[in-house]
Amino acid sequence: RTVIIDFFSHFLQGILERLDAGEIVIGDGGFVFALEKRGYVKAGPWTPEAAVEHPEAVRQLHREFLRAGSNVLQTFTFYASEDKLENRGNYVAEKITGQKVNEAACDIAKEVAKEGDALVAGGVSQTPSYLSCKDKAQVKAVFRKQLEVFMKKDVDFLIAEYFEHIEEAVWAVEVLKESGKPVAATMCIGPEGDMHGVPPGQCAVQLVKAGASIVGVNCHFDADTCLKTVKLMKEGLEAAKLKAYLMSQPLAFHTPDCGKQGFIDLPEFPFGLEPRIVTRWDVQKYARQAYDLGIRYIGGCCGFEPYHIRAIAEELAPERGFLPEASEKHGSWGSSLSMHTKPWVRARARKEYWENLKPASGRPYCPSLSKPDGWGVTKGARELMQQKEATTEQQLKELFQKQKF
Amino acid sequence: RTVIIDFFSHFLQGILERLDAGEIVIGDGGFVFALEKRGYVKAGPWTPEAAVEHPEAVRQLHREFLRAGSNVLQTFTFYASEDKLENRGNYVAEKITGQKVNEAACDIAKEVAKEGDALVAGGVSQTPSYLSCKDKAQVKAVFRKQLEVFMKKDVDFLIAEYFEHIEEAVWAVEVLKESGKPVAATMCIGPEGDMHGVPPGQCAVQLVKAGASIVGVNCHFDADTCLKTVKLMKEGLEAAKLKAYLMSQPLAFHTPDCGKQGFIDLPEFPFGLEPRIVTRWDVQKYARQAYDLGIRYIGGCCGFEPYHIRAIAEELAPERGFLPEASEKHGSWGSSLSMHTKPWVRARARKEYWENLKPASGRPYCPSLSKPDGWGVTKGARELMQQKEATTEQQLKELFQKQKF
Amino acid sequence: RTVIIDFFSHFLQGILERLDAGEIVIGDGGFVFALEKRGYVKAGPWTPEAAVEHPEAVRQLHREFLRAGSNVLQTFTFYASEDKLENRGNYVAEKITGQKVNEAACDIAKEVAKEGDALVAGGVSQTPSYLSCKDKAQVKAVFRKQLEVFMKKDVDFLIAEYFEHIEEAVWAVEVLKESGKPVAATMCIGPEGDMHGVPPGQCAVQLVKAGASIVGVNCHFDADTCLKTVKLMKEGLEAAKLKAYLMSQPLAFHTPDCGKQGFIDLPEFPFGLEPRIVTRWDVQKYARQAYDLGIRYIGGCCGFEPYHIRAIAEELAPERGFLPEASEKHGSWGSSLSMHTKPWVRARARKEYWENLKPASGRPYCPSLSKPDGWGVTKGARELMQQKEATTEQQLKELFQKQKF
Amino acid sequence: RTVIIDFFSHFLQGILERLDAGEIVIGDGGFVFALEKRGYVKAGPWTPEAAVEHPEAVRQLHREFLRAGSNVLQTFTFYASEDKLENRGNYVAEKITGQKVNEAACDIAKEVAKEGDALVAGGVSQTPSYLSCKDKAQVKAVFRKQLEVFMKKDVDFLIAEYFEHIEEAVWAVEVLKESGKPVAATMCIGPEGDMHGVPPGQCAVQLVKAGASIVGVNCHFDADTCLKTVKLMKEGLEAAKLKAYLMSQPLAFHTPDCGKQGFIDLPEFPFGLEPRIVTRWDVQKYARQAYDLGIRYIGGCCGFEPYHIRAIAEELAPERGFLPEASEKHGSWGSSLSMHTKPWVRARARKEYWENLKPASGRPYCPSLSKPDGWGVTKGARELMQQKEATTEQQLKELFQKQKF
Repeated sequence: RTVIIDFFSHFLQGILERLDAGEIVIGDGGFVFALEKRGYVKAGPWTPEAAVEHPEAVRQLHREFLRAGSNVLQTFTFYASEDKLENRGNYVAEKITGQKVNEAACDIAKEVAKEGDALVAGGVSQTPSYLSCKDKAQVKAVFRKQLEVFMKKDVDFLIAEYFEHIEEAVWAVEVLKESGKPVAATMCIGPEGDMHGVPPGQCAVQLVKAGASIVGVNCHFDADTCLKTVKLMKEGLEAAKLKAYLMSQPLAFHTPDCGKQGFIDLPEFPFGLEPRIVTRWDVQKYARQAYDLGIRYIGGCCGFEPYHIRAIAEELAPERGFLPEASEKHGSWGSSLSMHTKPWVRARARKEYWENLKPASGRPYCPSLSKPDGWGVTKGARELMQQKEATTEQQLKELFQKQKF
Repeated sequence: RTVIIDFFSHFLQGILERLDAGEIVIGDGGFVFALEKRGYVKAGPWTPEAAVEHPEAVRQLHREFLRAGSNVLQTFTFYASEDKLENRGNYVAEKITGQKVNEAACDIAKEVAKEGDALVAGGVSQTPSYLSCKDKAQVKAVFRKQLEVFMKKDVDFLIAEYFEHIEEAVWAVEVLKESGKPVAATMCIGPEGDMHGVPPGQCAVQLVKAGASIVGVNCHFDADTCLKTVKLMKEGLEAAKLKAYLMSQPLAFHTPDCGKQGFIDLPEFPFGLEPRIVTRWDVQKYARQAYDLGIRYIGGCCGFEPYHIRAIAEELAPERGFLPEASEKHGSWGSSLSMHTKPWVRARARKEYWENLKPASGRPYCPSLSKPDGWGVTKGARELMQQKEATTEQQLKELFQKQKF
Repeated sequence: RTVIIDFFSHFLQGILERLDAGEIVIGDGGFVFALEKRGYVKAGPWTPEAAVEHPEAVRQLHREFLRAGSNVLQTFTFYASEDKLENRGNYVAEKITGQKVNEAACDIAKEVAKEGDALVAGGVSQTPSYLSCKDKAQVKAVFRKQLEVFMKKDVDFLIAEYFEHIEEAVWAVEVLKESGKPVAATMCIGPEGDMHGVPPGQCAVQLVKAGASIVGVNCHFDADTCLKTVKLMKEGLEAAKLKAYLMSQPLAFHTPDCGKQGFIDLPEFPFGLEPRIVTRWDVQKYARQAYDLGIRYIGGCCGFEPYHIRAIAEELAPERGFLPEASEKHGSWGSSLSMHTKPWVRARARKEYWENLKPASGRPYCPSLSKPDGWGVTKGARELMQQKEATTEQQLKELFQKQKF
Repeated sequence: RTVIIDFFSHFLQGILERLDAGEIVIGDGGFVFALEKRGYVKAGPWTPEAAVEHPEAVRQLHREFLRAGSNVLQTFTFYASEDKLENRGNYVAEKITGQKVNEAACDIAKEVAKEGDALVAGGVSQTPSYLSCKDKAQVKAVFRKQLEVFMKKDVDFLIAEYFEHIEEAVWAVEVLKESGKPVAATMCIGPEGDMHGVPPGQCAVQLVKAGASIVGVNCHFDADTCLKTVKLMKEGLEAAKLKAYLMSQPLAFHTPDCGKQGFIDLPEFPFGLEPRIVTRWDVQKYARQAYDLGIRYIGGCCGFEPYHIRAIAEELAPERGFLPEASEKHGSWGSSLSMHTKPWVRARARKEYWENLKPASGRPYCPSLSKPDGWGVTKGARELMQQKEATTEQQLKELFQKQKF
């Protein structure tokens, strides 16, 4: 296969123009997980005050994803809604308001985007307000506050992501659509559907009807599971005769053992997930399958490091016609091993080797799979929650105590 | 346990003064592996031209290790000897000489070191010249050329690391000692000893006699194996009534299945090692065991990310009296989960949970262990090499073809 | 819990009287697998000529199951239809006709049954005639020939088992019903249904309408999968307002990785299944779950050894009021270890220990799961077969060659 | 390879004549484990009263081993010393004396041996008397009492087996030698040596000096470990210029994770060992390695079923010139699958397939290896015991309570 390295192609077009032209858009990876490992984000609250406190660290990560092939830089505003930041405890200086974080995040993303051909997307995600039963107006107000910053900073398009409830996701899309900019919407659900049991196909239909031009899933599940879910969304849209682009941004962890609520319920979350980390070859397989399914916005979520994004770009280089800048430092399919001094290492410089490798964990005292905690295994509790009998923290606590999870 | 967070303690002393005063010195992590994943180093040649090409990326990684607790910043000069860079193929611009790389690497390390209390160490490692049977004078000349840069840039001390042959390591120490600066020396060997069968105890004795003040192991093996090797070194030194500080910088991969030559022979090297990556809890266990064994220079090698180094600093915070800066973004033993909305996730906010977790790989179709390739399993070949009948590349090739490894 | 050991309760009633009285009927285990390991059955043909050649071996196995608690001794007539025996190759003396095997098998079962309170069941299973597209009359003639022997020997009731196609199973039930004796019918299918996609619920309905008083599944899948299938059968019967007793005789192998056609497609079949063998504690869990689901005829199939059957009897001893004879040589839940000289072995003499044990395989170089071969993973081939385009051996061969399975 | 099936070769010679003539002698398998699964032996006490209570079950198992290729039938007298039987609790009728059990066991073995060409060996093993610090005279008296029966019944030769302490093993050999019959002696030790640290080489020397003509190991460890131990014995004998035949009878369980005291300390012992059971192919590998090491008495211990013994006979058929009777019901290397209806099952009818299969456990929630309990991991306790400070039950109990194993 022949590919042309074209580092400097600035397309200038927007997200929909690119997709309309048949381009593959590559997303970026998982900021909170990557920056947690680099020492700038605290697991638990997962809030993005690093945009204010340590802009150089955020800038560097954006740059790495850009080099790896990302066509979209998402502003680092995850969990940066005012109501979320209020809950973040006492470890952040009081003066770092949500507005400051959101503004700084936009500035950094825009600055780095200029170094390549990437678009900047402003993102909103699920809110504590919704979970604590605030009404539609209140929840929308939270989204609207973040949107104001994105408009002020003039991002290229908007993403509503990481929603477990289709109702809240629809509200988010409705707010974002007020901007007139293109809106993508992804839910963190699996094939079983949203937390109230609305199946993926129906979710997709509602999102598109609310105004989303791109729909799909992000986070919570591994690539296999995410692709199954997007397939159901695709079928739902086809059945409803609706058109939209498809998008997937899965975890970079193997999680075949997840329950309905994804990897948060796995006993390894979030500090023991290492053995589940996907290889670059796993990502190439994912990219190919996503492409074959018709997905044209292909990225990653928690766990995706720059080299994982590069793997998407390398797998789809034949279709796209070029390699990302970071491929200068990467031989396709291990070819950079071809000069190794050991003959048996040189023998690994080929596609068949890495495609077929079943990598060992080095952990013979550990199992392959885990039983998820919590609702994943406690059907009764899940049903209670679905019946809205336990949506507040206090109710959950009581439920927990009563039912001895 | 009570710890005082003291971010700004500048000790001003050198490496030996610190060790003499009973301090624990924390090393840094694995640059080539971390920068490979970030898109700046090519696996295979593993050369550090990023110091010239992308100084911001190298600077950021140094900074992250510093924040994580590293007391030593090693100049990013791995494999930057002239003879090695000559072999690196055509993907690096011709004008990037070894001297330029070494100088740039020193400048970056020194610049970042000033942001905290870290020392800067210049490093040399095994050379192609030795493997291709160059004589003592020629090999020493290679080391001396790198040393000149370290002297010009006035690093704080010197490290001879990643040597498989005690003979070459001794030559390196001898050259580095010409500088008058303190010298640390680590070999990438396991309990079986160096490639000609010299046991770890004897290696340690020879290194100390050659002038090393600190001896130990780095790379090639996991923490368990490295600690076994350092223990043998310690016993060797005690038997010879020699004094030296002990040092360990193991892999951040579980490799109980390694053969004599370490993780390079594992089928997963270098692109399928993900399931073997250690957790922060594994690192805390390692730090404690290293400390109990009497090791006072405790760091990491390939695979060690900033959060792994932070785990060393957190485990030994009671002994040291302070936490590293990056612990602002980390709750000890998962305590940051104590406010999670899900009760079963909150239940993970305790030491016993993470200490006892047996993390699943999520890969039921993969094994736990691998059989190493090459000499690891081919005793005949290893013996030939040990008898110096096959030390050149050509001889290895012939051996390979004849014996059908 | 208190149980009364009652070795000599002869109930005298037939299978339906027992079930009508609310008794739990315990089946027996896997003859062909057990006798293969003992040296009397050849894997591949799996034919039961041992009933003629080595009656003492067959008698001893029946006796062991009886002692273990079996209430039913199935005549060892698996694959003993004339058309199957004709295919068995040249390793059996020519004079051993199907009639001789069937008669001898009945004699042995009846002889042993008298030593306890067991009933004798004559069994028929799927035929080569059906697979090679013989018509209804021809296939029924094969069953009728076996039935003649069962009538001559006056077995207590009849079982049609190990059918993959509901059509053939219905024909078998119709023939067996001609006898006037009670008929049980089990299929070797999973939750996906029979080989033409008829779901378990429909299969159950057709079997009951054809005259079966007891319906369920046997062989091909592990207990978890079998119970899921029986649950679907139960729901199918309830929806159709039909009454029948439920029966399950699963494998004694863990096979969560099976495809639609069960364990035959697993790469380990039949000579590498050892790591999958269930423990007695797995069987106790199965027995409890089967009971809770409403199944009252609970036994095993391939892999079930006498101690596995005893585990069913021990688990359900509280409900039944007695232990089997072989429990004289077994302490419930490991209690026989309570006098061991090693304190840590004594500590294993309790239910919680064995219930929670996650037994290691001792095989770190092996995976946990396998990908099934063949149709299990080759949807195209399966569909062809389902469309009756490839049901003969010759067609399969061609298919195989064309599609490079 | 061509082999002649010769079922009726009666050699008539004794054990030493056979070995002197260069023959390979095949042992039998594990009676207590096999009969426990069949319902006749109670795990924990493991005593052999079945020889009196259910002679038909013992006879049938002997017969199966004989058919499988065993040249030696060991009398089923394991743990049948008077002092052991006294401890067996109240579940055995009082009148079954040790003498009765020993006599019945001899009668059964001799009766079955006549059906083929097998020799009968009487066996003694370690005694409670030795563990409770009885003196040499008392322990020898226990062995002598068993020997009297073996002499009365005129067995062909004698085996002292399953000794953890070389001292007791030597005493046993001395007693058995009083008979004038050939004596074989095997210890249940690993490469670390006996419980007081006497290395295998020294153990072998002592056993030969005491009069054993055949020495080796049995039980407690898997084949790999046993072969390592026998190799050390062989080297010890060579160094001492002593001649003896070598013998191995390992477990049929994979136990790479055993500590010094073998599989009893594994958490799976004795009711969760199923996933560790070896395949027939594992046994063929073992038989070949044992033969290559120079072992000429090759058998099995706990877990060895008749088909495992047959695998020894089949692997060594080229050397021996004939197959065992049970091979009539077994195609070498899966050849009996060559007529299977499914092409992918037919594809398994070859040596390469089974030799290279890595069988899955079907248990993704279980680990590959276990940590042994007790002394295996508690060095302090082991040392105490080795210093004879804790050899009685009471001392062990106190030790257990004090040290919180």
